[in-house]
Amino acid sequence: MAGATLDFWFEFASTYSYLSAMRIQDLARRCDVVVRWRPFLLGPIFAAQGWPTSPFNVYPAKGRYMWRDMDRLTKARDLPFTRPDPFPRNGLLAARIALAAGPQMPAFCRAVYTAQFGGGADIADPQVLQNCLAQADLSVTLLDAGQDPAIKTELRHQTDRAIALGLFGAPSFTVGEEVFWGDDRLEAALDWAAPD
Amino acid sequence: MAGATLDFWFEFASTYSYLSAMRIQDLARRCDVVVRWRPFLLGPIFAAQGWPTSPFNVYPAKGRYMWRDMDRLTKARDLPFTRPDPFPRNGLLAARIALAAGPQMPAFCRAVYTAQFGGGADIADPQVLQNCLAQADLSVTLLDAGQDPAIKTELRHQTDRAIALGLFGAPSFTVGEEVFWGDDRLEAALDWAAPD
Repeated sequence: MAGATLDFWFEFASTYSYLSAMRIQDLARRCDVVVRWRPFLLGPIFAAQGWPTSPFNVYPAKGRYMWRDMDRLTKARDLPFTRPDPFPRNGLLAARIALAAGPQMPAFCRAVYTAQFGGGADIADPQVLQNCLAQADLSVTLLDAGQDPAIKTELRHQTDRAIALGLFGAPSFTVGEEVFWGDDRLEAALDWAAPD
Repeated sequence: MAGATLDFWFEFASTYSYLSAMRIQDLARRCDVVVRWRPFLLGPIFAAQGWPTSPFNVYPAKGRYMWRDMDRLTKARDLPFTRPDPFPRNGLLAARIALAAGPQMPAFCRAVYTAQFGGGADIADPQVLQNCLAQADLSVTLLDAGQDPAIKTELRHQTDRAIALGLFGAPSFTVGEEVFWGDDRLEAALDWAAPD
């Protein structure tokens, strides 16, 4: 199936998006699927559902479970894991920079996720993001994307598109209109994109 | 690992519990895990979160996704699937009968899930449950469990225990205090109960 593509919708503040960001390229390569990385913002989507913050804060039992689940999953996958405090971090600036990162977007995103969930760093801090740019061999001038009107508009459009697709959480994967939600659906989404 | 046990927490109205109910015995047998079937009620747990009905109704985007996800999963697993209308059904009577069903509880539960999600039947209807009892080789007199004060108390206690364990959805699986949520965590829960 040459030409199979999958859209990977992620929010930088999302714990489970970290899990997918760290493994999606390897998995996709194995089944010849091209991944389009699509940062978007969950904030507006959660706000529309009446949640002023992450549902993991709004619903404490769900939150407690998520942190334990992340402990188990990161351990099983040999990924570093530190709980950011406070949670969630603000991923707006990181998302804008990601949109400006071109072919290096995946490398930049992995650096951001690792800084945040591996090291507990505040990804709203430009200094943290500067280090992430360096790790992805990108110029520090990309920090300016945070103030670029075209990039701001692009991120808003991307979030609108996520809403139009029916997305309500992250990570999500789409193949055309077909939606898969959650890191545990990544394999199913890839299989949908490129059936054996 | 002789003696490994896993508690399977399910709500009859829950779509994803259907998926687990239909496969848990076979999977558990393969890894020598004894499953304790624990019906409980999500209604009081959802109400405490401010939801008057299933979150799949409260949050329409999540609901639309769930139905599509169930379509895909039941097809992949060769399970019949009909969307109950209205949804959710009231699983109270079925849960009380299940608690009275003794060693035949799993067979009764599978019959209830198949009637509801395979055939779209209303599992609050005593006639439907009478058929389910017959399919599990149980006496129709178990319908009386719906009015049995001891059974009513037992179901309330079971739901209280679910809350104490931090459960917030179904299916959930517990191994001691360790909680796994969702049909897609069943394998991980079994592996926790009986590591290779």
